Order: sequence, then structure tokens, then C-alpha cells
Amino acid sequence: MTATRTVELEGHIIDSGMMGRCFGLIMDMDGSFEVEQFDIGRHKHEESYARLAVSADTEHDLRSILHELHQNGATLLDPSDATLEPAPEDQVVPTDFYSTTNHPTKVRVDDEWIPVDNIEMDCAVVVERGTRGDSDGASDDEELRERGAVGPKAYTKVLNAVEEGDMIVTGEAGIRVEPPERPRGDEGGAFGFMQGGVSSERPSESLIAKVADAVEETKQEGGNVLAVCGPALIHSGAADDLARLVREGYVDAISAGNGFAVHDIERGLYGTSLGMDMETMEHPRKGHKHHIYTISEIIRAGGIEAAVEDGVITEGIMYECVENDAPYVLAGSIRDDGPLPDTITDAVEAQNAIREQARDADMVLMLATLLHSVAVGNCLPSTTRVVCVDINPSTVTQLLDRGSAQAIGMVSDIGTFVPMLADNLLDQ
Amino acid sequence: MTATRTVELEGHIIDSGMMGRCFGLIMDMDGSFEVEQFDIGRHKHEESYARLAVSADTEHDLRSILHELHQNGATLLDPSDATLEPAPEDQVVPTDFYSTTNHPTKVRVDDEWIPVDNIEMDCAVVVERGTRGDSDGASDDEELRERGAVGPKAYTKVLNAVEEGDMIVTGEAGIRVEPPERPRGDEGGAFGFMQGGVSSERPSESLIAKVADAVEETKQEGGNVLAVCGPALIHSGAADDLARLVREGYVDAISAGNGFAVHDIERGLYGTSLGMDMETMEHPRKGHKHHIYTISEIIRAGGIEAAVEDGVITEGIMYECVENDAPYVLAGSIRDDGPLPDTITDAVEAQNAIREQARDADMVLMLATLLHSVAVGNCLPSTTRVVCVDINPSTVTQLLDRGSAQAIGMVSDIGTFVPMLADNLLDQ
Amino acid sequence: MTATRTVELEGHIIDSGMMGRCFGLIMDMDGSFEVEQFDIGRHKHEESYARLAVSADTEHDLRSILHELHQNGATLLDPSDATLEPAPEDQVVPTDFYSTTNHPTKVRVDDEWIPVDNIEMDCAVVVERGTRGDSDGASDDEELRERGAVGPKAYTKVLNAVEEGDMIVTGEAGIRVEPPERPRGDEGGAFGFMQGGVSSERPSESLIAKVADAVEETKQEGGNVLAVCGPALIHSGAADDLARLVREGYVDAISAGNGFAVHDIERGLYGTSLGMDMETMEHPRKGHKHHIYTISEIIRAGGIEAAVEDGVITEGIMYECVENDAPYVLAGSIRDDGPLPDTITDAVEAQNAIREQARDADMVLMLATLLHSVAVGNCLPSTTRVVCVDINPSTVTQLLDRGSAQAIGMVSDIGTFVPMLADNLLDQ
Amino acid sequence: MTATRTVELEGHIIDSGMMGRCFGLIMDMDGSFEVEQFDIGRHKHEESYARLAVSADTEHDLRSILHELHQNGATLLDPSDATLEPAPEDQVVPTDFYSTTNHPTKVRVDDEWIPVDNIEMDCAVVVERGTRGDSDGASDDEELRERGAVGPKAYTKVLNAVEEGDMIVTGEAGIRVEPPERPRGDEGGAFGFMQGGVSSERPSESLIAKVADAVEETKQEGGNVLAVCGPALIHSGAADDLARLVREGYVDAISAGNGFAVHDIERGLYGTSLGMDMETMEHPRKGHKHHIYTISEIIRAGGIEAAVEDGVITEGIMYECVENDAPYVLAGSIRDDGPLPDTITDAVEAQNAIREQARDADMVLMLATLLHSVAVGNCLPSTTRVVCVDINPSTVTQLLDRGSAQAIGMVSDIGTFVPMLADNLLDQ
Repeated sequence: MTATRTVELEGHIIDSGMMGRCFGLIMDMDGSFEVEQFDIGRHKHEESYARLAVSADTEHDLRSILHELHQNGATLLDPSDATLEPAPEDQVVPTDFYSTTNHPTKVRVDDEWIPVDNIEMDCAVVVERGTRGDSDGASDDEELRERGAVGPKAYTKVLNAVEEGDMIVTGEAGIRVEPPERPRGDEGGAFGFMQGGVSSERPSESLIAKVADAVEETKQEGGNVLAVCGPALIHSGAADDLARLVREGYVDAISAGNGFAVHDIERGLYGTSLGMDMETMEHPRKGHKHHIYTISEIIRAGGIEAAVEDGVITEGIMYECVENDAPYVLAGSIRDDGPLPDTITDAVEAQNAIREQARDADMVLMLATLLHSVAVGNCLPSTTRVVCVDINPSTVTQLLDRGSAQAIGMVSDIGTFVPMLADNLLDQ
Repeated sequence: MTATRTVELEGHIIDSGMMGRCFGLIMDMDGSFEVEQFDIGRHKHEESYARLAVSADTEHDLRSILHELHQNGATLLDPSDATLEPAPEDQVVPTDFYSTTNHPTKVRVDDEWIPVDNIEMDCAVVVERGTRGDSDGASDDEELRERGAVGPKAYTKVLNAVEEGDMIVTGEAGIRVEPPERPRGDEGGAFGFMQGGVSSERPSESLIAKVADAVEETKQEGGNVLAVCGPALIHSGAADDLARLVREGYVDAISAGNGFAVHDIERGLYGTSLGMDMETMEHPRKGHKHHIYTISEIIRAGGIEAAVEDGVITEGIMYECVENDAPYVLAGSIRDDGPLPDTITDAVEAQNAIREQARDADMVLMLATLLHSVAVGNCLPSTTRVVCVDINPSTVTQLLDRGSAQAIGMVSDIGTFVPMLADNLLDQ
Repeated sequence: MTATRTVELEGHIIDSGMMGRCFGLIMDMDGSFEVEQFDIGRHKHEESYARLAVSADTEHDLRSILHELHQNGATLLDPSDATLEPAPEDQVVPTDFYSTTNHPTKVRVDDEWIPVDNIEMDCAVVVERGTRGDSDGASDDEELRERGAVGPKAYTKVLNAVEEGDMIVTGEAGIRVEPPERPRGDEGGAFGFMQGGVSSERPSESLIAKVADAVEETKQEGGNVLAVCGPALIHSGAADDLARLVREGYVDAISAGNGFAVHDIERGLYGTSLGMDMETMEHPRKGHKHHIYTISEIIRAGGIEAAVEDGVITEGIMYECVENDAPYVLAGSIRDDGPLPDTITDAVEAQNAIREQARDADMVLMLATLLHSVAVGNCLPSTTRVVCVDINPSTVTQLLDRGSAQAIGMVSDIGTFVPMLADNLLDQ
Repeated sequence: MTATRTVELEGHIIDSGMMGRCFGLIMDMDGSFEVEQFDIGRHKHEESYARLAVSADTEHDLRSILHELHQNGATLLDPSDATLEPAPEDQVVPTDFYSTTNHPTKVRVDDEWIPVDNIEMDCAVVVERGTRGDSDGASDDEELRERGAVGPKAYTKVLNAVEEGDMIVTGEAGIRVEPPERPRGDEGGAFGFMQGGVSSERPSESLIAKVADAVEETKQEGGNVLAVCGPALIHSGAADDLARLVREGYVDAISAGNGFAVHDIERGLYGTSLGMDMETMEHPRKGHKHHIYTISEIIRAGGIEAAVEDGVITEGIMYECVENDAPYVLAGSIRDDGPLPDTITDAVEAQNAIREQARDADMVLMLATLLHSVAVGNCLPSTTRVVCVDINPSTVTQLLDRGSAQAIGMVSDIGTFVPMLADNLLDQ
């Protein structure tokens, strides 16, 4: 017995790698295919189209293949509407729920393709039917549109936000994923130059200049730059330069952990970071006393903002955030001392705060932190610009390996990267 | 002006490295010293004694030096009682509070040296005065002792547990730290062989055999073995072997994160880990669908224990934990999907649960996780046996670099280490 | 002005990724293309065909693009013969010489496509015209064929082997590169399972079993297994198991450095490796005395073979090589002590010896050495099976990133990998 | 039976760590000791003295212990002359030859302590008796001294330089090793600040400023700065800045491999490094064609110096070396293409050339190369200043772990380190 379905690929299917991936995965998964139609874009700005009949030994195998094809942008021919099933309980999804990618996605509802809002990977898609049928007939479309109530809408929900009765998309029908074309040459703006992934063997100064261009470009387009920061940024002496970038408006928001904020404030209070004097590098004894006492003082003041107002904190990154209304999220972790009153200790609450930051960001700088970068990266659509800098090549690889279309990875020293970036942006 | 105080060093001050470190740090910190008395142990089982007059340019510098000397085991001559000050507010410590090391520590209260309970690094020491003075005079010492009420007691508190009015030790007087002698040769039991730190250039099979001996020895002494586990343990195929170790009673407790438990359960439900078939390694597609659905099913069942009872979970590490009453702590993180109902999402609550585990443990196996190992390691006294295995040498170095007297580090593949360890313990 | 040429792609151009890469690089290099014909293989065993007109702004740009297209398997339509130019001097190539890939390659000479022998990357291609024209006319083709003299032949030469007057292929015309299809599923034999590159998050035991299958399969096909070994193999305690694999005929040849052989022999002579006792791990003092003395003794004996015959060496990997006629190459390096008389100290001579080994090998195990693995890898065609094991992920990535069609990378501990591999092959 | 010998420790035995290490290793090696005399330096500038009776179960064990004690600076009481035995053959050492450390060392010959010249680790010590006895009696000491012929001399020989009949020091008697005191505070000059080894968590800019101070200081003292360079320095865009440092006389000599020189020259000839344009980072295709052709052109010119004279090479590091008479050693390796005519392909010859460089150097910058840094490091006495910079922490640790008294390790990006160093030295 063989099961067969027909799928379509449309768009920049060659240039995005979509076609190659789709052909490859059918074969990997022991399926077969016949190409029924193939209209190739004759040059790089033309779109292409392919229609394939995909077969597998069993219906079950075919479904697995179709699932993967969907994830990579193929759609079923003669599309039916997406199948919807109610969530049986809070935080419980129906069997065979559709799990999202981070690519722009549409679902077919009432014969119409509607975009999925707030796309984010590994979520369920919830569809809310429009109010048209429910309305009393008197109201016209315009009024409804004003009330934001025309037609159905679709959006993502993470598992813990699913509520009983939410109409959840299941199966593969009626879903279209659009993997982004990668930008190239001058089309790609500042990010066009980045091809072929992470390397420690690129000219560092030139690469930092390109990152500065991308930040500049993002700001000129009115975009929002989020810096995700690890504590090594403070230890390595880059705090002053990041503080300047916040002050001058090149960094709009900070996502970090409790330790990052404490080290930054300790540096302001004592000139030390974990007890080491940042100027002379003297007395690098392992005492955490300054660290703990810093937290204690901020608790006494009632939090970071209060401590700035009281004049307890007079410099540094957190200071500039408060002074320049740059919002920050400090997410708690089981490694933390204290924590500060500002730190969100509940992981789910912290994720929600991070999710807001991620959605607001047009460009994300991931600076020497794996944990927080993964948390932010989990919430990003594949279309957001990402720059990831870490001394550890594995961290950079892991962070970039998420199908982002506009990502730059750099294996470098955060203690030289941030100063050079700041010089590029501010001293010209 | 010069400030001078006299300090004493006592015990295995050469063998523990105490004397060398103390001399060195005085000079590093621009102090000077005169050795007033020095009685050296003539062979390795005899204790030594040294008395030094330590000087510095200013009283402030001297205090910094004395702080470090204390951390390394020196005590002030002619000891006065420890200075106590009340905590001014909840979660706020007095200026100049004493911040603990992870070494056995005593404080002098009412002219008596009393041990600090639950020693753990970077804590405050709280002293509770005994009830003697409060008692009505009728009760004698014996009765008080029975009631556990004779004399003062001292114990550690992390910052967030400090309550207004707690009597907190400040300054350096009246405190004695006892850095552990490192075990050597046959004195050290199974851990005696480990000298000179981490290396990837040791014979792996022999080293695993020694770790097995140490586990065996710990169990024979009635000790408790805690395994701190990262998700790579599941991906690398070591889950069955760890499950066997739990079933056979070689591992008494598990400390891990939400992801570890989900991967383990997913493997039981679907034979996959993050979508990869663990036997055939086929279809390593990146879908998280199994992962999310696994969490959804456990939520539906009401948690891991309920899912085992319902027959939803029928194998794996979590299954063996439930069946064999091996307690587990799953600490939440901002990277988590779900999470499972069993996962403690609040970082402070999770730390408290981890602290309990750490105090119960006589031996800790840190298996391929930095985050959870640091969290557990933060709560351990320097006398607990620790084995740390990771493929990343930096992780191993970072975890062992905490002054533990009985620590083994091994740069190895967790996917071969755990099976070989299980073979050593179970197949003989 | 625009320059245009027409190129063809033929074979498994989708499955090998050839088409995607060719389209992509034209765009990356600011060229454009029109697809003039496209016949797609309808299922996975059918070949495909594409004909493209490629254009660039200048003739120079077009040549750069055509160069890259060639490297990736495209050929010029209406092929002319390859252009040949004589080498102007020894070790000097003509301007615009063709630099090889490691893929199977043909050159067109006298209107015939002939294979390039001993394909290896970054070489020149030398063409020797056949003797047909030179012969006296009496001899017929058959006789010539017996004398091996019919028609032209083509082969690679590294730069230092080029001799004045060698006829060297230049430009891009008349050259066809055939990037290998990647094996998949059961077609690929033991290597079919490996998709998606290096990972430390695969089940280690299963992966080692697959490597054992691949070794077994290679031996059953009469193939030759070459082990490229670093000194960490000895330190990590895997020497006995590798010695067993040589003795039992699973490893046919060894490629290593001076240090590897010395550590192996020191272990036999003293039971130590760099002074550490391999059983007890005691006395890991840093003395190199055993190391130097071992070399001195082998020099006194006149070399490894003589030392085996004299009974100086009685066990170990080098011993088994001598006893079982397994050839070894010990390549010198500027880090070496000694070196042993067997070590080839001249880098060019050593490369030539390694080149012979690489050409004889049907499967190569790269075990914990970057330097020697790169040297061997440089000489391998892309069709040779390669397994690379190292504790450092960067080493594995770097070694596999050479377009090999049949490569397995594993981030693991060589001290557990080799014993487990030997158990899989020998204890069943 | 117990074997006992008395040893002395003299000098800064506490501050250098000598005493701690000696006590520790006796116990590690299952020996015992009695302290017969102990006069401690009362402050940091006073020397100390200790006399110990060291015992072990067997004469053999005692010898092992004494060997290690010697390596760490202890000397036998009541010293006899060093024992000398002739080398039995070329490149063969007597049984029980003394293997050197890299610390300043003296041997006792004819009741006099004479320094061992050209101290280097893992060598034999050769003693040449003076000519006093051989002289005709007429010449007086002064004349002999002028002829350099008064008294015996001692120097190191690597194994391959040992000649039959050389008088080689054996055993442990009559040898005194002087492990260097570590510099501290302002005594240590620019290197005084470095305590506690390698870290990626130090302020990078401050650390680079300190390195610049140390280079400046070395030059002001008339010292010689040797840069040991890996090819990543070129790829990461630091070539121009290193060229400036050579031109301005801050770097006096270069030690590198064939690839380093080729990449540097290719950059000058084509603006590419391994085919990547260093300015635009465009077209990072993997072609080695420029690389091979560069070598070919230099061969045609007759070498680097000839190519500079012919105007083929007009910029870059090698250019500045030729123009500024900065000597360079290019050591061959089995990874090399070509090689260049300047490359020393024989490993033993290359080691000898490196040895000369190492002996001339007062400060060594090890920049992003493990192989060449190890080769240079092997030839350095422990008193030479060393700065080691690499993106890989393991490389830095491995290079610094050789008992150098004046070593700075930095985990950083060579592509930002060298430009910042050059800015510190040149732009002020």
C-alpha cells in the first residue's frame, strides 16, 4: 500500500534552499516523489513554482513527511481549511497539534489565508473565529473593522498559556510556512555580507564595523535594539562602553540575569567586580562580600530605580537604563545570590517578560550569555536581525542554528568587541 | 602609620597549603609579616603552629588582609568573641558582615568556639544565643542539653533568608576557618588518587573504575549519592544506565531541570529525544512536537508521579525515581518548555529545594550540566565528595575550582561515561 | 557590457546539493542566470539535467563565477579541450592554473573525457599525452594498451612536485567535477545513517556500534583501514585496545607522530606515559625522563623494528605493527623530543609518505589529533570513508568540513571510544 | 628497610612555593620527612632555610623522591660533585641521566657550583672539564680567563645533539635548581600584576594596556621581543597592525610556519587570505588557488627576500621583516602547501633555528598558535617573559603551565588584541 498527497512549493524556493531541503527530506524519510510541474524563476528576482506528488509506504509515514515538508514551506495542494480542535484542559494540547516554526506562517480559515501573529517556535496556533456570524446583522464591515472584530485571527500560544476550549490547529492541512530568503549582496543591507556562518577566522575589525552599520541602520529605520548580556561583559571591562551605548540611544533595552545587574552595580559602588578592582586588576581575591553587600544595599533601597533616585547608584549600565527609560528584564536563575528586588524569580513570568522584549526588538545583540540568549532566541521570529558574540564557538553555533535569515555570529572577546563597537558608533 | 595584628595558624598548615597561601596573600596585598613562632610538624601526621605579626600601611588595608587570612584559616591571636550586629531589615545585612567560605567554620561566642551549622559559601552567619539566661534557674545544664537548648548556636543564612533582628557575625574577630587537608595515598580512600586537578589526558577506563569504587565506598558507609544531570545525558544515550543505577540504589537522588525530565519521559513514550530515534538515530528532524506533547500529557495526568501510577510513564529515570522513592528536584529555567507540574519555577524556592538535597548528599555526581551543578555546588561544604564529568574542559575546571578537598574532574563523553560506570558497579 | 557563458549540470544535481549551490553562488558573486533547460529526475534514482546561461558584468567576474561553478560540478557547454600550458620552472605553475577539489574529476583531452588519477585537493593537474602519435605505426592499440601507453593520462601533482615543462591544465574549460551524492538510508551501508554533521548530542553507544559496522563492512569488502592517532590516545588509556585492533587485522596502517610512538613504547618499557603510571595513575610528576630515555634506547637499538627484534619492545601498538606487518608513518614535528630513528623529520618527505597511506586507505579513523588528521585529510579524495573522533568539537568540525561524502564526526572521549569500538569488533 | 638522605632548601622557599611543593611531593610519593632545621625569613625580602631528612621504603623510591625534590629546587646536603658518565653512542644518554627543568640550574664540578648554560627543559647536561690541567703551567688564570678556558663549563644538549663520549650528568647529586620567585606588586614591573593564572574574565582593555607596558619596558631595557604567530592572525585581520609593530621596532623577530607567511604575502598580492577579500569579506569561496599561486610566485622569485627586492612583495609582515632586518624562522609542517623556499622543512633543523630565536628573546608574544608556541616554549628558560593570547582557553592554559615566572595568559580574539596592542604602543 502506498499513500500519496500532492504538495506545492512557491516563492524563492531555490534561493531559500526550500526545494533542496524538501527533496532531501523526502528521501531521508524513505518517501518518494514525482515532480508534476516545475516553473523555475529564470533569474534571481523571479519566483519559482513546483508541484510534487509525495508518496510513502504508510499513511503514518506520509504524515511524518508532510509534517516536515510543512515545516520547510511546502503546502498541500487544493488546500482545505486548517483543522481545529479544542484544548481539552488548561495547558493541554489536542493530539496531533501543529507545533510552529519561527518562520512567518499562515493558516487557512474559512477559505482565507490569515497570518499567525507573534510567530515563535514550538508553540500551538490558536484560532479565534471572527464575530461576523455572531453579530446582529446591523453592523457593517467598517464598524467591525474599527472594533477590530472583522474575520478570524490566529496567534501563537506557548503550552502554559493554552486554556481549555482554545481552538488549536492540528494536522498539516491549511498551513503555509514561508522560510525567509537569505539576503545577499547589497540587497541585504548591513547584513548582506554574512554568508557561511560562524567563524573565528574573519577579520574582526571589519566585522565589528559591519555590526555597527547594522545597528546604525536599524536605528535609522526607527528600530529597537535589544542587548542580551552575560556577566562576563562586566568582568571583561566592557560595562562603560555598553553604558555609553544605552545613554546615546543605540541600545534600547537590556535582557540579562540577576548577576549581570549586581556586578554592574558593584562596580559602581566599589570599583570591583566579584572583588577584583577593574582598573588595577589588583587583589583578585575570591571574596563575594562586595557582591552580597551590593545586593543587600539595593534591597534596603527598595530596588534599582529607587537606588538610582536615592543616589546610591550613580553610574553604570543599570543607571543609564533608569535614567534613559531603557526597559530591562532581569530573569532569575538557581545560581543567583540575593536576588535583587527587580529580578523576576519565577521562570514562567520571566519568560513572559522576555517574550515582550523579543517581540519589540528589531535587532538583538547576544553578548556572552548562552542561557539568556537561548531564552530570548526561543521567542524570536526568523526575520529578526541577530548578532551573537561569544568567546566559545559552541555557544555561537548553537545560537545561530535556528534558521534565522539575518544572523551574524562572531567568536570574539566581549571585552574588546563592545569597546570597538562603541567606538565605531560613537567616535566618528 | 602602620597597623599590626597578630594571627595564628594551626593544624596541617603546610599540607593543606594554608601557610603558603597566607604568606603569599599578605605579600600580594602589600602587607608584611614577622614570624614570631613556628613549630613545624616533623612528619606528615603531626600538626604545625605558626604565629605571625601582620602589618599594613593603614587600618583599612590591614582589615582587607585579615579578611583574606581568615578565609584561608588564620585566626586572630588572643581571640575575642565574634562581633554580632542585628540585621537592620529583612534581607539586609549589617555593614561589614562576615561572608562565609565553604570550609568548616567555628565562631567564638561567650568565650567558646562553636561550629557553624550548614556551612555554605557566601552566606551570613547567624548566632542564636542559648536559653541559659532566659531559663528560670530551676533547669540544670543536663536538662537543657536534652532539650537541645544549652548554649548558643550558629548557622548560615543566605541573604534572602535573613530576617530583621537576626544577630549577624561581622568583622573578622572570633572566627576560625578550617580548610581541609587534601587526602593522599591510601588515606584518602577512593579519592586519594586524585591529584593535580582536571585533565583529559588520564586513562579514562581506570578513572571510571576509581569513581565506581568511590560510589561503592560511599554506599557501604551508608552515604547518599546525588546525581546532578543535564539533558545531554539523555541525548547521548545514557538514560537506561542511569535508570539502572537508580533502580539498584547506587543513585539516591536526582537534581535536574525541566528539560532533563521531559527528554527522559519522551524517550519512554516515543523512543525519541527531541525527535531523534534513540536506537536508529533516524529522522533527526528538529521538531519539538514530541517534546511539547509529552509535557502536555504529563500535565493532563497531573504530574510525574500520577503519570507513573496511571501507567503513562513505564520506564526511564523519572520512572525509577518514583518507583524507588528516590527524591528529585526539577528546577525551572527561562529556557524551559511547559514546564511540567513537578518543576519548581521560582528560583528561590528551587534553590531551597536544592539546598536540602545538597545537605543530604555525601557524594555528588555532576553529569553534563553547568547550571545545575553550579547551583548544587554553591550549597555544598568543601568536605563533600564531588565527581564532575563534562565534555567541555572549561565546565569541569569551573566546577572544581571551589576548594573542594575531595573532587574528581573528568573531561569525557557522558554517553560513554555513564554506561561504563554502570558496568563497573552492576556487572561484576 | 555583459559576459555570458552557458554551463550544464548533470547527475544527482538536486540530491547532491549541486544545483542549489550553483544557483546560490552565482547570486552571491553578483552574477545572473537564465535556466534554458531543466529536466528533473522524477524520483530519487533518476538523474537530472540543467542548462544555464550565466552572466556577469565583466569577463573577469564571469571567470571567477565559472571557476566556482566548476568546483561545484558544472561544466561548460560545448566543451572544448582543457587548456594546457607548460610549467615554466620546477615548482612553478602557469598563471591561471586549475586548482583541484577533492571530488572525482575528468579533463577533456583530444575530445575525450579522461579521469584525473589520484585526485586530491589544491593540486595542479598534469596531462601526459599518449604515445600514439610517437609510436612507429606498427604497434596496434591492443599492444599499446598492454604497455599501458594508449591515449593520454591525467593526474594530480602538488606544487613541490611540479617539474619544468609539465603540461598543466589552466582555465576552466574542459574540466568536469563530480561532487558525490550523499548516501542515504540503507543505500549508504553503515554510513547511511549519518546526516546533519557533528554533534555531541547523539547516543554515543549506538554511534560507536555504527562505526564498528562500517569498519567490519570495509574489511569484508577487502578494504584498508588507516588509523591516524594522536598521543592523547595513549594518555587516555586506549593503547591496549588499539593494539588489539592492529593484531586482529581491523586496523591496517597507522599514521602518527613521533610522540605517539614514544608514549606507546614508554608504556611498554616503564608502564608510564609521560611519567604517569597507567594503572594506578600515581606519581603524575611532570618528569619527561622516561620519555627521553625511551627515545635514547630505541636509537641505541637502531629503530623500532630492530628494538622489537631485540626484545626491547614486547607489547603495544608499534609492537603489533611490526609483528603484523602493518605499515606506519611517523611524521616529525617541531614539538618532538628526539626524534626516533623511524620518524621522518622532513615535512615534504613525510607528506609524500602520508599521501601513499591516504591513497591506500578505504576508511580512515582520525583519533584525537588535528595536525596529522589535517595532513591525511588533505590527501584524501572525497569518496573515502572518514570517521573523526575528538573531545574538542572545533577539531571535529574543522576535519569534517571538507566535502567528504561519507564522513562521521563524533565529539567523544578517545579513552572510552577506542575500548568500546574494540569491544564491538572483537568481543562478539 | 628505610633509605634516608638529607636535603636543603634555600632562598625564597616559601614565596616561590618551593617548600610547599617539596613537602607535598614527599607525601604524595609515600615518603616521610623530619625537619631538622628551619630558619624562616621574617619578612618578604629575607631568604629562608630548611633542612629535611627524607625517607622512603626503598632506595629506589627514595631516588624517585629525590629526583622530584631536585626538580623543585632542593639540594642534597653535604654536596658531592655531580656524577658524570660518557654518552655511550651518538644520541644515546647514559642510564639515569639527569633531565633538566627550565629553571636556572647549577652543577657541582670539582667542588664548585657552575651554572648550566642555555638552560632548557628535558635536556641532558654536558660538562666540559676546563683546560687548567691540560695547560702548560706557564699561563696564568687571567690569560686563561681571556681565552675563556678557565675551569669547567656546563650546558644543555637535546638528545639528538648528544655525541658519543660527551660527559653527561647522571643521578641527583651535585645539582641545584633555582625555581624563580614570582614577581609581585611593583617589584615585578609590568608583569607584577599577573596573579592566579589564565582567565577570560579580566578586563580586556586594561590587560592589553599592561602588555603594552611590558613590551615598552622590555624595549627600554634593550630587550628583544619575539612574536610567535599563527595563520589566524592574518585571517582575523591583524596583519597590518603586526606589520606596524615590526616596522616601528616593537617586534624584533618572527617565529611562524609556512602558512602564516603565505597568507600574509597572498594578502599583499591579492587582498585575500585563503581567497577571502579582507576588506569586503566578500566571496569567501574555499578556493586555495591564490594561496598556491602565491607560493609558486615566491618560488619563481627565489624566496621572500628576493621577492621583496624584485618588488613582488610590497607590504605586509614579511615585507617589514625584510626591510627592517627582523629575522624570521618559518618552520615546516605536514599541513603545508608548497612550501616556500624560506621554510625549513626538516623538523630538527627548524628546532635548532627556533632554539636560537628563543635564546635571543627577552619577551615572547605567543599569538594564536599552539604548535609553534609549544616549540618555542620548549626552548625557553623559566625567566623569559611570556604573553600568550588565544581564543581557546585550553591552548592558553597548556602554554602557561610550564612554570614560567613571568607569564600572562589571555583568552581573547587575536583580531582585536593586536590592533589594540598596536594602538597602545604607537598611537600615544
